[in-house]
Amino acid sequence: MTYSVAVSGASGYAGGEILRLLARHPDVEIRTVTAHSSAGDALVDHQPHLRSLRHLTLQPTTPEVLAGHDIVFLALPHGQSGQYTDALGGASLIIDAGADHRLTSEDDWNAFYGGLFHEPWTYGVPELLVDGSKQRERLASATRIAAPGCNASTVSLSMAPGVAAGVVDATDIVTVLAVGPSGAGKAVKPHLLGAELMGSATPYAVGGTHRHIPEIQQALRAAGASDPRVSFTPVLVPMARGILATTSAPMAEGVTDAEVRDAWETAYANEPFVQLLPEGRFPRTVDVTGANTALMGLAIDRSANRVVVVTAVDNLAKGTAGAAIQSMNIALGLDEATALPVDGVAP
Amino acid sequence: MTYSVAVSGASGYAGGEILRLLARHPDVEIRTVTAHSSAGDALVDHQPHLRSLRHLTLQPTTPEVLAGHDIVFLALPHGQSGQYTDALGGASLIIDAGADHRLTSEDDWNAFYGGLFHEPWTYGVPELLVDGSKQRERLASATRIAAPGCNASTVSLSMAPGVAAGVVDATDIVTVLAVGPSGAGKAVKPHLLGAELMGSATPYAVGGTHRHIPEIQQALRAAGASDPRVSFTPVLVPMARGILATTSAPMAEGVTDAEVRDAWETAYANEPFVQLLPEGRFPRTVDVTGANTALMGLAIDRSANRVVVVTAVDNLAKGTAGAAIQSMNIALGLDEATALPVDGVAP
Amino acid sequence: MTYSVAVSGASGYAGGEILRLLARHPDVEIRTVTAHSSAGDALVDHQPHLRSLRHLTLQPTTPEVLAGHDIVFLALPHGQSGQYTDALGGASLIIDAGADHRLTSEDDWNAFYGGLFHEPWTYGVPELLVDGSKQRERLASATRIAAPGCNASTVSLSMAPGVAAGVVDATDIVTVLAVGPSGAGKAVKPHLLGAELMGSATPYAVGGTHRHIPEIQQALRAAGASDPRVSFTPVLVPMARGILATTSAPMAEGVTDAEVRDAWETAYANEPFVQLLPEGRFPRTVDVTGANTALMGLAIDRSANRVVVVTAVDNLAKGTAGAAIQSMNIALGLDEATALPVDGVAP
Amino acid sequence: MTYSVAVSGASGYAGGEILRLLARHPDVEIRTVTAHSSAGDALVDHQPHLRSLRHLTLQPTTPEVLAGHDIVFLALPHGQSGQYTDALGGASLIIDAGADHRLTSEDDWNAFYGGLFHEPWTYGVPELLVDGSKQRERLASATRIAAPGCNASTVSLSMAPGVAAGVVDATDIVTVLAVGPSGAGKAVKPHLLGAELMGSATPYAVGGTHRHIPEIQQALRAAGASDPRVSFTPVLVPMARGILATTSAPMAEGVTDAEVRDAWETAYANEPFVQLLPEGRFPRTVDVTGANTALMGLAIDRSANRVVVVTAVDNLAKGTAGAAIQSMNIALGLDEATALPVDGVAP
Repeated sequence: MTYSVAVSGASGYAGGEILRLLARHPDVEIRTVTAHSSAGDALVDHQPHLRSLRHLTLQPTTPEVLAGHDIVFLALPHGQSGQYTDALGGASLIIDAGADHRLTSEDDWNAFYGGLFHEPWTYGVPELLVDGSKQRERLASATRIAAPGCNASTVSLSMAPGVAAGVVDATDIVTVLAVGPSGAGKAVKPHLLGAELMGSATPYAVGGTHRHIPEIQQALRAAGASDPRVSFTPVLVPMARGILATTSAPMAEGVTDAEVRDAWETAYANEPFVQLLPEGRFPRTVDVTGANTALMGLAIDRSANRVVVVTAVDNLAKGTAGAAIQSMNIALGLDEATALPVDGVAP
Repeated sequence: MTYSVAVSGASGYAGGEILRLLARHPDVEIRTVTAHSSAGDALVDHQPHLRSLRHLTLQPTTPEVLAGHDIVFLALPHGQSGQYTDALGGASLIIDAGADHRLTSEDDWNAFYGGLFHEPWTYGVPELLVDGSKQRERLASATRIAAPGCNASTVSLSMAPGVAAGVVDATDIVTVLAVGPSGAGKAVKPHLLGAELMGSATPYAVGGTHRHIPEIQQALRAAGASDPRVSFTPVLVPMARGILATTSAPMAEGVTDAEVRDAWETAYANEPFVQLLPEGRFPRTVDVTGANTALMGLAIDRSANRVVVVTAVDNLAKGTAGAAIQSMNIALGLDEATALPVDGVAP
Repeated sequence: MTYSVAVSGASGYAGGEILRLLARHPDVEIRTVTAHSSAGDALVDHQPHLRSLRHLTLQPTTPEVLAGHDIVFLALPHGQSGQYTDALGGASLIIDAGADHRLTSEDDWNAFYGGLFHEPWTYGVPELLVDGSKQRERLASATRIAAPGCNASTVSLSMAPGVAAGVVDATDIVTVLAVGPSGAGKAVKPHLLGAELMGSATPYAVGGTHRHIPEIQQALRAAGASDPRVSFTPVLVPMARGILATTSAPMAEGVTDAEVRDAWETAYANEPFVQLLPEGRFPRTVDVTGANTALMGLAIDRSANRVVVVTAVDNLAKGTAGAAIQSMNIALGLDEATALPVDGVAP
Repeated sequence: MTYSVAVSGASGYAGGEILRLLARHPDVEIRTVTAHSSAGDALVDHQPHLRSLRHLTLQPTTPEVLAGHDIVFLALPHGQSGQYTDALGGASLIIDAGADHRLTSEDDWNAFYGGLFHEPWTYGVPELLVDGSKQRERLASATRIAAPGCNASTVSLSMAPGVAAGVVDATDIVTVLAVGPSGAGKAVKPHLLGAELMGSATPYAVGGTHRHIPEIQQALRAAGASDPRVSFTPVLVPMARGILATTSAPMAEGVTDAEVRDAWETAYANEPFVQLLPEGRFPRTVDVTGANTALMGLAIDRSANRVVVVTAVDNLAKGTAGAAIQSMNIALGLDEATALPVDGVAP
């Protein structure tokens, strides 16, 4: 069976990456691509790298245009998905790459986003430990999926195994992320200009204000933490794509090095897309460029009494579009790895 | 009076930056530049940006060549300074940009460097709080100065005010640094190739192994901490120069936001080269490129119970060569700011 | 049928890219990977992005190890392929990614490379116009293939249509190429350090000395030029991969704009991997990152009397490894596009 | 005497660089900085690297605010300078960093810019050969100065010596420039986003449409060419600042290599800010970052019959602000080099 697909927000970065990956998916037909202000343009005018899709024209993002497809991807600015979901009742599967359906707590929504609260959908990170099993199980029967925030899933995957195994203290997690500016989308803001960002490291959302914080806390609570607290600082660095999250937490009293390492090894031993590197090795973002892979290295620092997990993710691939398509594959009962590269494009 | 100067290691990055700054210093004459394997070459063959010094030829780094100058800068690989210092007894002032004379603890030296331990010299970070005063006072009478490690001084300056004021808990400091590869020097190693580092974030020395850790602990003890512990993770990012250190520590129980912020404001209120930005503002590395300035932003995250200090430094300028020359100015009784730019080269 | 494959030089950039593409090829089995000084290491220690091949160990590059495979890729430094080719008589197909078998003129070889001259093999650029047909026809029956130089094929593809159609004067071609440093390989040289190349544009081989010049002249002679001359200047710029070649030539007297444009349109109308963009559009290197695609834009400048062709190629993909595998597919009678991405990884 | 200075467009890149250099000028007082939409903000909110000017507030750009200063710098978008110049009759010296007063030909203005034509001012490139002398002589008595286009002056300086000496054929000049995006200003356009430009080379204005072309032709006519023609292609590359122009022209019949090289050597032998490198050496942009220096390398390619000149310039420094201040120094009778760095900030 071939599933018909519509992708909204197709002129943006998340939409473009969804299309790049779907273009090689044998079980889907990309029938419709939509955008807002660029409706009427050729897709390739906004995504010049998608040469295999140069026959497609952007249509307006309306419920009517999106209706009538088996699968609909919403890659819209936060707060805009809700208006479409009611009208798309007929779609077998809707996947929202935005934040609208991620949070289960209306208080968190109000504190970090504001505006109308939407019901939470099944969270699209298959490898997350949730109540002793993997989130994959919930995705198998999902028809509405909330793809994760790229930074959020990177940090959650970094710490969930230690939290679930009880080997770390989740009340004092610290994470600092080197991130590429594609994570901020194609919105045109002065501080995102190339001349501003090249040759520089630029922090933002310092001090507990980033919107991915409640999403991480929610995931770590699901993994077993009672009161997860996260000091979260993203730093823009001069690479178009990529997240390198350095996340640490105090170790629980009395745990051995082997117990700590074992928590992560056990959690990800059989995961094709979340891989723990051997001791003493740490990943680079370029190792996962374009890939649906989260690469992780773990160090135990007894002097500082912290376990340090360094995780590399491509924010657009595994961080957003890859997670969305991996979740789609699971929900459709397809091979989970279909169309998802595991090897990065390096150097 | 014009002081005669010799700079060893003149073909490397630290040596080059010392020369770039000294070239505009009205009170010194750069008489001698030395190198190891490139002795005999024109300086400008190795430092093509130093057009004003194109008349200089690299001489061999030997005690004989370095002797007979008022001031000698040693910008040599760690472990090589010691052999020269005895022979240079006549120099009024020797400044070592390497690590050999930084640590006061032989145990620390053995644990992180190894090889012969050298006596500690006066530490070249004038703005550091030491026993209730500034290190500047000690530099005023110094004749032997150890310039700091670039990452170490960045982190130490970030946390010393909070430690000295007792508003942070120094036993759980976490710092993650986005750093440019010039900090690794001109040594030719595969992982430092441009093709490897461009478009990527690359962690190294993860888990408590970086040599700047004991130097930070030493500085924080001098600032008043009894048992400073630091989780320290450097990440190479694609910018030639710069350090952006995101450093956080738990807040001491009961302190108010105002007390926290006041600690830093008071410490650096009158410092020309260490500046705290207004609330809600954070620095970029490009703001201090080429400058002797450390720019700092501070946030208080009550949810995570941490104060977060983000500090931008040019690793070669304020991080090494600028600190060395600022210390020299103090030791010579000159205006401390002579030849030291406060404005960065941006964008 | 599944073909067994050996890849030598597997620790380098060209070898790594061959493996990245072959890993998704359904008709080959990567049985053997070899290297020189890193023999014995895991492949993934040197190619950490090739997660799907983490079971492979590097073996020594010897004729014995390479023997017994259906297909052998040689990705060795120039001058080293020759010693293996005799010993590999049994291989159905040998593809050399080095220069040893590219040039047909021993004089050119001596002038630009030196050392032992080797017999020319079938040149691996299927889309090149050769004597009125495409090089693809020659590749269909090839058993020994010389993959092109990345800069050479980029410039040759840029100008061959105009040369073949007689609409440009090939005696005064000028090309300037912005190139990423991965084209220089993993050899560790000071001027290729990240700190040297970041934030800078660095010319090299200025003034007619680059080794790809005779290769371009050879291709343009094959396309019909009697005395092709090329002013060729490569400039290293801060991107790991990519070539953007700006190539221009005087227009032949009396030709119309339509005739000029038509030469390129006709030549590449049905090519999946060499695409001419619509008038007024020009490619970026990121549009073809990781892809086997050459994207081309063409402008006619009547004031300067030049046709200007701007071509973007991924030096490792279409420039080397992609060309090699595309040629392999042709030689084996497989679908020419197998395992070769047409869409780039952008942004 | 201290001159009072006003800088308009102070929130932009050209204005920022003028201020960075003026801040260290002993003979001027920066009294007024103006901007358009950001009037009322602190200067340092828009130029966070100008820490020494953090006491300044942006005032609105009006004739009234700019009036009453000895020297006025106009760093405004093209077409906006004219409205101020009448009202500023009292200023001893006005320097326009925009294009309004550069071109002497109204036809050129209409063809490349359009809108009201303004009278040409003295062109601010002191080292240019004009009618057998240097432009410096004209600047000595100037009161209205047009600072050059950064690309234009780079190419003009590259070719003027050969043109003036009659050793090159100016009817077939080809130049391709690797340029940093700060040259495009702070205007917020999607194609200038960091995510778009990082890791990529991006051509623009291909095929004879760039506005700096008539400015180059004008300069080369002044140097002695009767019909200069220039194929001009700029390529954005991932560095914030810098121009590396590779410019070539056919050599005149019968000239010797020595005659060619001598033309450039003679022209720039005594210039502090335009320097020809020794044979076989070529400049990198980083060698002149932040400096008022144009570094040049020259190669003679007899096979292609072209002389190739590679010139590195910092587009904001020597390309714009440095040229403006150098011209100001000359016009005021000060030491021409005052406040102008000759050494670049590298690496």
